[in-house]
Amino acid sequence: MTTQDAHARAENATDTAAAGKALGSHKGYLQGPRPDIRVPVRRVHLTNGKDVTLYDTSGPYTDPAIDTDVRRGLAPLRENWIVQRGDTEEYAGRELRPEDDGIKHTSPRGGLRNLDAVFPGRPRQPRRGRNGASVTQLAYAKRGEITPEMEFVALRENLSAEFVRDEIAAGRAVLPANVNHPETEPMIIGKNFLVKVNANIGNSAVTSSIEEEVEKMTWATRWGADTVMDLSTGRNIHTTREWMLRNSPVPIGTVPLYQALEKVDGKAEELSWEVYKDTVIEQCEQGVDYMTVHAGVLLRYVPLTARRKTGIVSRGGSIMAAWCLAHHKESFLYEHFSELCEILRTYDVTFSLGDGLRPGSIADANDAAQMAELDTLGELNRIAKAHDVQTMIEGPGHVPMHKIKENVDRQQEVCEEAPFYTLGPLTTDIAPAYDHITSGIGAAMIGWWGTAMLCYVTPKEHLGLPDKDDVKTGVITYKIAAHAADLAKGHPGAQQWDDALSDARFEFRWEDQFNLALDPETARAFHDETLPAEPAKTAHFCSMCGPKFCSMKISQEIREQHGATMEEVEAGMAEKSREFAAAGNRVYLPLAD
Amino acid sequence: MTTQDAHARAENATDTAAAGKALGSHKGYLQGPRPDIRVPVRRVHLTNGKDVTLYDTSGPYTDPAIDTDVRRGLAPLRENWIVQRGDTEEYAGRELRPEDDGIKHTSPRGGLRNLDAVFPGRPRQPRRGRNGASVTQLAYAKRGEITPEMEFVALRENLSAEFVRDEIAAGRAVLPANVNHPETEPMIIGKNFLVKVNANIGNSAVTSSIEEEVEKMTWATRWGADTVMDLSTGRNIHTTREWMLRNSPVPIGTVPLYQALEKVDGKAEELSWEVYKDTVIEQCEQGVDYMTVHAGVLLRYVPLTARRKTGIVSRGGSIMAAWCLAHHKESFLYEHFSELCEILRTYDVTFSLGDGLRPGSIADANDAAQMAELDTLGELNRIAKAHDVQTMIEGPGHVPMHKIKENVDRQQEVCEEAPFYTLGPLTTDIAPAYDHITSGIGAAMIGWWGTAMLCYVTPKEHLGLPDKDDVKTGVITYKIAAHAADLAKGHPGAQQWDDALSDARFEFRWEDQFNLALDPETARAFHDETLPAEPAKTAHFCSMCGPKFCSMKISQEIREQHGATMEEVEAGMAEKSREFAAAGNRVYLPLAD
Repeated sequence: MTTQDAHARAENATDTAAAGKALGSHKGYLQGPRPDIRVPVRRVHLTNGKDVTLYDTSGPYTDPAIDTDVRRGLAPLRENWIVQRGDTEEYAGRELRPEDDGIKHTSPRGGLRNLDAVFPGRPRQPRRGRNGASVTQLAYAKRGEITPEMEFVALRENLSAEFVRDEIAAGRAVLPANVNHPETEPMIIGKNFLVKVNANIGNSAVTSSIEEEVEKMTWATRWGADTVMDLSTGRNIHTTREWMLRNSPVPIGTVPLYQALEKVDGKAEELSWEVYKDTVIEQCEQGVDYMTVHAGVLLRYVPLTARRKTGIVSRGGSIMAAWCLAHHKESFLYEHFSELCEILRTYDVTFSLGDGLRPGSIADANDAAQMAELDTLGELNRIAKAHDVQTMIEGPGHVPMHKIKENVDRQQEVCEEAPFYTLGPLTTDIAPAYDHITSGIGAAMIGWWGTAMLCYVTPKEHLGLPDKDDVKTGVITYKIAAHAADLAKGHPGAQQWDDALSDARFEFRWEDQFNLALDPETARAFHDETLPAEPAKTAHFCSMCGPKFCSMKISQEIREQHGATMEEVEAGMAEKSREFAAAGNRVYLPLAD
Repeated sequence: MTTQDAHARAENATDTAAAGKALGSHKGYLQGPRPDIRVPVRRVHLTNGKDVTLYDTSGPYTDPAIDTDVRRGLAPLRENWIVQRGDTEEYAGRELRPEDDGIKHTSPRGGLRNLDAVFPGRPRQPRRGRNGASVTQLAYAKRGEITPEMEFVALRENLSAEFVRDEIAAGRAVLPANVNHPETEPMIIGKNFLVKVNANIGNSAVTSSIEEEVEKMTWATRWGADTVMDLSTGRNIHTTREWMLRNSPVPIGTVPLYQALEKVDGKAEELSWEVYKDTVIEQCEQGVDYMTVHAGVLLRYVPLTARRKTGIVSRGGSIMAAWCLAHHKESFLYEHFSELCEILRTYDVTFSLGDGLRPGSIADANDAAQMAELDTLGELNRIAKAHDVQTMIEGPGHVPMHKIKENVDRQQEVCEEAPFYTLGPLTTDIAPAYDHITSGIGAAMIGWWGTAMLCYVTPKEHLGLPDKDDVKTGVITYKIAAHAADLAKGHPGAQQWDDALSDARFEFRWEDQFNLALDPETARAFHDETLPAEPAKTAHFCSMCGPKFCSMKISQEIREQHGATMEEVEAGMAEKSREFAAAGNRVYLPLAD
């Protein structure tokens, strides 16, 4: 399936010191085939002189050589690549309106007039495909072109650029990269790549501020989020998103329906294709990389949810169901889907076809409503692909373990192996406050079976909005699920991380064990709670067993006392075993009865 | 597989108020076929007038009608049942020695002389089978006898007593119940019953006190631990265990080898069958319900671990390997296994045949050493069964997801379906400080596939000894895994808990949602962080979406506005669907290409 030529190039990598010191690692870069392709990595220098190189989503923030400032935004890494392709143009863009920030009725007209007023960083105009051209990675891949973005992810995933191009061309992977979000470090989502993790953040009418959300975004990527969805529903939606995009090293996803609904004061029946389309263009121009579109919630599917235990639990799904019922008309998203494709392809916005009818309880898993919608998503996937729009498919929710695999198998079949992007699934309903765990179990399994990206669930799911601690817990739980899935899929290179950590553990290199951990800070803090003294970090025991009982120590002593090398241990023991056998091989005699 | 007659009896249940108020529930009892069989349950009274009855491991501590005192110990619930069987006798018991508490060399002789000095509660003498008789639940089950213990678990599991007897007789389930631990509320471990959870606690040479360990034990059972293992290795081993046994409503397990090693000053090579046997008898007389015995670590298997990444990580396994190598003799546990069976059956102590060669890293999973030991455990299981000793088999450690099922399948085959009792497994090595999660994933899966009891892992695994918070986190994580497994196995009645919680969620009965949660306190606290006001608990929205966007609310409105009942909604919508179809059924027209 994969060719491996890329990591040879890693030898050219440059290294910058100091940064990410708190994480016990250093920022490094893998040098690509052209000078401006430099793939960030987290490099852990071990006390035994070896190096371990890990995938890094933290962006320029962990590079001490780069001076970042959230008021200025990140450097537009991909700008030259986009400009050099020559198929896009800058244009004036849609005029901003007060209602873009949800303040239609309360603030004076003209409060939001242009992007400069929204974000203080470098002036910019939106960009789009010239004359409606497809400027998507899918269009390039189909034509056989390998873009710098594809080169970047090939190096990042340790695979060949041709393999990357082929997976994108086949619709088996997406590389979300809006031409208006040149700040992104390219990444790829597909079942033949590392399993990815998305973190949802966003304010609501009830709580939180712009600063908090931007902070949560950089925090999520620091711990390993591969993409971030801004699900804001309250005030300042446009402005919050602008700050997030200008400062995000990872693709940003949204659900445009949420903002559209704000524009009609939360009245689902007042939504229209026009308001929705206007919102989509607004977000395309800002640089949103992928959009959840609940176009599979059809009028005739709504009755299928009537006998459910928890009805429709997707916000987007319930909004569209309410609209369909209010008008007794088919969904405007479904009716105008082709027109939507024509918009998205001129910015290279990726579809995330929403599962508006996902099950919200164990009782509703894999039911007729969910499966009917999936069939429609398969239909829409084919249309989007024909329009050169990159597409992934959303799935699960609450699903017991024995019903998980059916979800992936059916999605892969119906959607021609398009990347599956699932929430959890939560494998039981009984543990509010621990749904990162109920869902981490399902996420690991569904990742193993072929899901390309896992949407995290935090401990606050069902209870409130996640704070920074919740975001971190959610991301780490899902990085565990994703990596466990990579191991189970036999992803080349995945196990080297486990091996490096286990070697450190067996050899009592405590500092290396901490630094290789997914969360070095917490690992170190937990160890120090029991044995805080510095010498304990190099001691050949730990607090679990005390100095006498340590199994690792005994295990090491067995090696040391019975042969200098493992080979000698084996040979010596085999000899003893033969002696043992020759001496009558007296094994235990079972009872007569 | 199961007959269901027991819950009918639940109608006779008595209820005591107030207790467990913090958990939003009340202690109740299911009345069995004789007056002294009363099975504790956690009963959640919902605001809609309904009741949900949940399995309860918290013991008399949550019953306000019972006055508990850790210095007195719990009432000996099973004493009459044991005495009435007439096959046991009280006897003087082994004389206690200072080294029982690990103080061989430092305290004056006679410091520990009898049990009264160790624990202040009611005086007691140890009990054993008369004339070496088998007094095990297995022996009774084989003879066709249904004991009160079996009646108790039948009611507890909502299955027939005859089914329980049959599972025990076949060796597919164990009911750990030492005649010297009459305080236990009987419970059963087997793949055809609810998946159980064990919590490990215990002091070490480095840290913690008797009081802390007893407190951790009651704390663990409060959150749902079905058994507790006392893995103490430091001072006061005997005394700590005595306090734990006299106060524990759940079976207590140990690894006698740890205490035996303390008696020989931590020098593995000085261990002997005599010291070990003496320790086993000491613990049998105290009331330990099950003992981990690493009798499967054979001399000839040790070389199989030489090339491993992390060698031998089981403490018991490494001690026995060291002993075997030091003497170049076969394990004394293996050599004397039959004699050990003859001891255990006179107290009804259950074997937990230890997996001394379990893998300690992803790299070592399912290797030759592990599988060789499993074959020997199969051999020992047959011998134990022939001796009427109840037996379960220990397994996993670190195993990636795709290698988990092989473990259960092979164990079930080799060990004639004896209950499997596994640690985790941890599905990746990269997340120290989060190994409750790396292993919770594996535990849920292995539970689904047939493991009968899951040994928890806390966030401190690999780093330190768990404190109270860690114990709670470990137990809750594993209750999630066990319940997810019960759902996936289709255990009768498991889903009613999820259904009750999901109903409460859909109907915005916040208090019911909290009270039904595995951890009501944390669920309530998380909700209150964002929306602390009391009215918010009955509000038809929550902080995630705010009042306008709530999908559940929209979903409810759809029902309300379009028909008073779900049947009407369905009929009405079907009518509209037919109208829609009749009007041309205008579906989206795909592109020509």
